[in-house]
Amino acid sequence: MPQTDPEALTAALVCCASVTPEEGGALVLLQDLLEGAGFACTRVDRGGVSNLFARWGDKGHARTFGFNGHTDVVPLGDPAAWTMPPFGAEVKDGFLYGRGATDMKSGVAAFAAAAVDFVTETPPDGALILTITGDEEGDATDGTVALLDWMEAEQEAMSVCLVGEPTCPDNMGQMMKIGRRGSLNAHFTVQGVQGHAAYPHRAVNPLHALVRLMDRLASHELDGGTDHFDASTLAVVTIDTGNPATNVIPAEARATLNIRFNDAHSGASLSGWLQDEAAKVDAAFGTTTDLKIRISGESFLTPPGPLSDLIARAVEAETGVVPEASTTGGTSDARFVKNHCPVVEFGLVGRTMHQVDERVEVDQIHQLKRIYSRILHDYFA
Amino acid sequence: MPQTDPEALTAALVCCASVTPEEGGALVLLQDLLEGAGFACTRVDRGGVSNLFARWGDKGHARTFGFNGHTDVVPLGDPAAWTMPPFGAEVKDGFLYGRGATDMKSGVAAFAAAAVDFVTETPPDGALILTITGDEEGDATDGTVALLDWMEAEQEAMSVCLVGEPTCPDNMGQMMKIGRRGSLNAHFTVQGVQGHAAYPHRAVNPLHALVRLMDRLASHELDGGTDHFDASTLAVVTIDTGNPATNVIPAEARATLNIRFNDAHSGASLSGWLQDEAAKVDAAFGTTTDLKIRISGESFLTPPGPLSDLIARAVEAETGVVPEASTTGGTSDARFVKNHCPVVEFGLVGRTMHQVDERVEVDQIHQLKRIYSRILHDYFA
Repeated sequence: MPQTDPEALTAALVCCASVTPEEGGALVLLQDLLEGAGFACTRVDRGGVSNLFARWGDKGHARTFGFNGHTDVVPLGDPAAWTMPPFGAEVKDGFLYGRGATDMKSGVAAFAAAAVDFVTETPPDGALILTITGDEEGDATDGTVALLDWMEAEQEAMSVCLVGEPTCPDNMGQMMKIGRRGSLNAHFTVQGVQGHAAYPHRAVNPLHALVRLMDRLASHELDGGTDHFDASTLAVVTIDTGNPATNVIPAEARATLNIRFNDAHSGASLSGWLQDEAAKVDAAFGTTTDLKIRISGESFLTPPGPLSDLIARAVEAETGVVPEASTTGGTSDARFVKNHCPVVEFGLVGRTMHQVDERVEVDQIHQLKRIYSRILHDYFA
Repeated sequence: MPQTDPEALTAALVCCASVTPEEGGALVLLQDLLEGAGFACTRVDRGGVSNLFARWGDKGHARTFGFNGHTDVVPLGDPAAWTMPPFGAEVKDGFLYGRGATDMKSGVAAFAAAAVDFVTETPPDGALILTITGDEEGDATDGTVALLDWMEAEQEAMSVCLVGEPTCPDNMGQMMKIGRRGSLNAHFTVQGVQGHAAYPHRAVNPLHALVRLMDRLASHELDGGTDHFDASTLAVVTIDTGNPATNVIPAEARATLNIRFNDAHSGASLSGWLQDEAAKVDAAFGTTTDLKIRISGESFLTPPGPLSDLIARAVEAETGVVPEASTTGGTSDARFVKNHCPVVEFGLVGRTMHQVDERVEVDQIHQLKRIYSRILHDYFA
């Protein structure tokens, strides 16, 4: 029986122009492939976004292995800056070029090819679920979340899930991700009393309060890191006043900061801290600070255990490298999946993701399929 | 001999639309009046601005009393908001209305009328010099400065000078000004290294340095006031970054502050302090701060003495009030005159200056002329 070629599948997917929220034919192509291998497929479209749910085996099986990925891609940037056709999937010097080549059509192709071959060649006592979304690079409100909502309603469940995002900074096999820091943005608006710069005692300078507050926050050590996380960080990212008059004390000043936090904190605990600090400074300066907080995501962790061990063993067997269990990096849909089941991310080297001339090393696509295949064999062994 | 009416003269000047840099007929009118009383007049125009020099008596006389003032006025603001014609000089309920009514056409009218009557009725053994500029409300680069430059070239000199600006906050006679605090603006641009907010250790956040620096500067007590001056003040007036991305640490941040300083400091000493503080913070944070300082004026003082005593006695005799010798307030052309001779400012209540419906109490115009007349009599007695 001919094996499914992940390189050809990657190329076919790259040729689908699927910039979020365009489906571009990518999910249709995958659905055809998966249905051909006996997967029951459902399109779970929501809010103008397309998503694909595919299951092989019995619904509700106690051993259900999940893969998650996305076929949508970020825009091209400056199309003229590309030296290769961005939706051409051309191969040159061992690299396949195109938008989504690394992020993450090759990952989807590798796990789809591995899954199809696995159920075809060695049908397991268990089930496989593939959730593939067209809204990871956009707002992500109608993507993996829509799939998980639908699954809950349909009583579909994964026992564990592997997200196929690129995870290796430099070399294949180097890193898997077992969690992420949370992220929070806080927008401060400090209100004082406008006045003439020559008579500051008749005014209340919101900037004097704001610099004290920001200095206190920025110089506070949130923590020294935890077992599986780097130290939490806080960055003031903008302060703006827009006062053109050097002889006027402004009435209002604004600042925004971003916190990346580990499992020593929560969005709620940090919000409380920020409110307390603002209140202290307001009391000292006579200002009134309005604080708007947006929690983009809480920190989460799938503690090292059976799933990460399984992945590490397969990676080491195929690459000779033991992957580091990391919690660094930006957000991914793992932040949604973690509410559903244990989740780990592993994929190839993501160096050119989101860049002009995005490309994937062809050998890595094949290697990634071998790793995913080994994970499936070991899981169901 | 009929006395010169300062009210009629104020009204005539208010009817001249002399918004800086327009002469509007005001200086022509004054020149006619003064030449009629035997003043030698010279128009000292420079840079598109009109100025008038007028001397009665011998050039270089050891007893030369000077008056300084301006006939230019600030713009109307919203013309529709005026309830009286802004260049109409209409009188209602004891007030004369119009742009410049208090700042300072009434002051110029009062000292011109006093000077004309004085030299006509009791010609002194001495000289009078009137310097009247059309560029006080503008950049002031071609106004009193041009007159003083011309005087130096022509070996014209005043022994003392009285600037007729409004000086009384609420009641006539309340305050004269014997000096001013200096003013300095400092513009800081802090350069760091841009980066992702999730990895602050790979970036250098210029905002963290800037808030530390501004907090240090704003919470520093410059002094507790000196013999004739209030405490120096520092106000951060704007901080701007313009970074719309909450996940990006910006490369650069800017701040501006204003210092009003007394005679415990100079522009140079403060510049040194600001540079030192910026260098300390740069060393701690790894930033590079560019500092541009503009000294609008050094502090100056005509210490209490013969001139202020003379003015105080005359004010008390006419109003019953002993004027406070103050150094408060914004800038005036006294900052230029002080390089030339002892200078004190005294004028009427300035409450409506620069406002819509600017107006002067008619009685105060006459009272101010009487005060100026008494000063002249006492000076030459």
